[in-house]
Amino acid sequence: MKRYLDAAASKKTDRPPIWLMRQAGRYLPEYRALRQKYSFMEMMKTPDLATEVTLQPIQRYGFDAAILFSDILTTAEALGARLTFVEKKGPVISNPIRTNDDLRTLNSQPISEYASFVYQAITQILPEIAKHNVPLIGFAGAPFTVASYMVEGGSSPDLKETKRLIGNTPKLLHQLLDKLTIETIAYLRGQIEAGVHAVQLFDTWAGLLSFEDFKTFALPYTQHIVTQLKTDYPHIPITVFCRHSTTFSPLLCQLPIDVISLDWQTDLHWAKASIPDHIAIQGNLDPGLLLASHDILTKRVKNILNTMADRTGFIFNLGHGVTPDIPIDAVKRVVDVIKGY
Amino acid sequence: MKRYLDAAASKKTDRPPIWLMRQAGRYLPEYRALRQKYSFMEMMKTPDLATEVTLQPIQRYGFDAAILFSDILTTAEALGARLTFVEKKGPVISNPIRTNDDLRTLNSQPISEYASFVYQAITQILPEIAKHNVPLIGFAGAPFTVASYMVEGGSSPDLKETKRLIGNTPKLLHQLLDKLTIETIAYLRGQIEAGVHAVQLFDTWAGLLSFEDFKTFALPYTQHIVTQLKTDYPHIPITVFCRHSTTFSPLLCQLPIDVISLDWQTDLHWAKASIPDHIAIQGNLDPGLLLASHDILTKRVKNILNTMADRTGFIFNLGHGVTPDIPIDAVKRVVDVIKGY
Repeated sequence: MKRYLDAAASKKTDRPPIWLMRQAGRYLPEYRALRQKYSFMEMMKTPDLATEVTLQPIQRYGFDAAILFSDILTTAEALGARLTFVEKKGPVISNPIRTNDDLRTLNSQPISEYASFVYQAITQILPEIAKHNVPLIGFAGAPFTVASYMVEGGSSPDLKETKRLIGNTPKLLHQLLDKLTIETIAYLRGQIEAGVHAVQLFDTWAGLLSFEDFKTFALPYTQHIVTQLKTDYPHIPITVFCRHSTTFSPLLCQLPIDVISLDWQTDLHWAKASIPDHIAIQGNLDPGLLLASHDILTKRVKNILNTMADRTGFIFNLGHGVTPDIPIDAVKRVVDVIKGY
Repeated sequence: MKRYLDAAASKKTDRPPIWLMRQAGRYLPEYRALRQKYSFMEMMKTPDLATEVTLQPIQRYGFDAAILFSDILTTAEALGARLTFVEKKGPVISNPIRTNDDLRTLNSQPISEYASFVYQAITQILPEIAKHNVPLIGFAGAPFTVASYMVEGGSSPDLKETKRLIGNTPKLLHQLLDKLTIETIAYLRGQIEAGVHAVQLFDTWAGLLSFEDFKTFALPYTQHIVTQLKTDYPHIPITVFCRHSTTFSPLLCQLPIDVISLDWQTDLHWAKASIPDHIAIQGNLDPGLLLASHDILTKRVKNILNTMADRTGFIFNLGHGVTPDIPIDAVKRVVDVIKGY
């Protein structure tokens, strides 16, 4: 329990804690076995199943933290996005937000009621992870990233429709972001009240914004959430993940966050020199290197550990999520190297 | 002629020169009209057609530089990649490099012979652009980016197979990069001898590498090319384009380059403070903002011009290429704002 929370509080730890983004996922055979019986939505929305999946990587690898098995689009659904998950395509939203009418006619539900399956899952997970003595990380998508799905109608490599709004009806996008911000605060509050020990905001797609637009359409909303949560729950560590960390993390580090999660492009020497000491660093192995031979993988993990050895407040993670094609042995190797360090 | 070359030499200009990456392309109706009669390959490999397409955006907009209509995979083809372009999918290479055998059995041709259609096109373009008094920029894909296509067998959002080589048989990847480096030098030498006034290296996909791997698999090869060309042709300006500029441009700026082309995420205030004065800055409007209303687009272009007003050595461009769906009026507006500045 203590190792992750100490590192997140920028306190000394016996060794760096390790957990991996998307550690509960398709690369695990026990996950795939369950997935043959249930859809992704069913697994996420059935507390018994969400509990089982959240625990799978803890049982297999002994990670230092569990992360709630859920999806960043829960806030989008509560706000009225009609969401399905299509095999090999990912999330599809059938009522994309392009006009004021699209936004006005959304059929929203209060997140406190809508997300009861999440709060229930947390309640069930807590006694189980207590046996493993690890904390539970709750999470939400940051408003810009969730808004981009709601505008695009799914994933998009270039955020074309979102940028069309930025360039034509920025007020509409701000209205959507405002709604999502209020909802995200309520959602994370609900998770904290249900018992999570830490929270993380995922703002993956904000990495596709220009510097100016990041400051206009992503940063203020993340700031609002983080500031509110820090006021209400000063003891709950907050992590923010962003892509293009070298560019955007200096802005994010001005917020009252506890941990910054860096992408794999970021030079950790630069990060040590640039990230203020009171903010812990999480990251940043290239997930693609989990395909490496054990020798090279060991070397690369050790490089990161050596670079960060003199930094109090370091949490080992990937620079992005584990992908489905990763061999389970590679993850074991990473965990072994860190536990043996 | 002088405006682009002066800016590339970090000399004062009356106003910033403007050209756009992929300015000769599918967003132009006159390009699409030609494309109905010929395949992309035919257009590229027929000097008359390549000349016509190269000139199209100069005739329509009066850009300050022309860029050769060609493809970054010319070096891959000369090295023996069996390349086709598939509608809505892009380049497909049917003999991807995954093993030593794949590399050994490549049926290579000397680029000096293979690329004769490129050198011929340059010879034909030169008298035409002389009438417009603008220089011609030649280009090549940087070795890592071209290698990634040859390994993946086409575009890949995550460079999975390339990272598999990095993690398992890095020597094989280095061998491929060595071959491409020698070839790229010969290719750009051929373009310079044929008469181009400047060259640009495109290393888009190197932006997906970790900092450590960028230093190992991208930087040394770009360094080799740039150093060799600068020794042989000190008067020819060299531009390097990379994604993740905030992360990687400090490394590239240690090379003897003349211009660094920045992606749209990069903060130009940071760039002015970080890029050495002897290197000109090219960039960096978000191509997605070409979908903006004329008012917002005008404002954003002016923001860039104002930010860069006190920087000698600035070339206006996008942070990446023009996409096919961009309205031709938007490009005109950008050109008008800059010419009226």
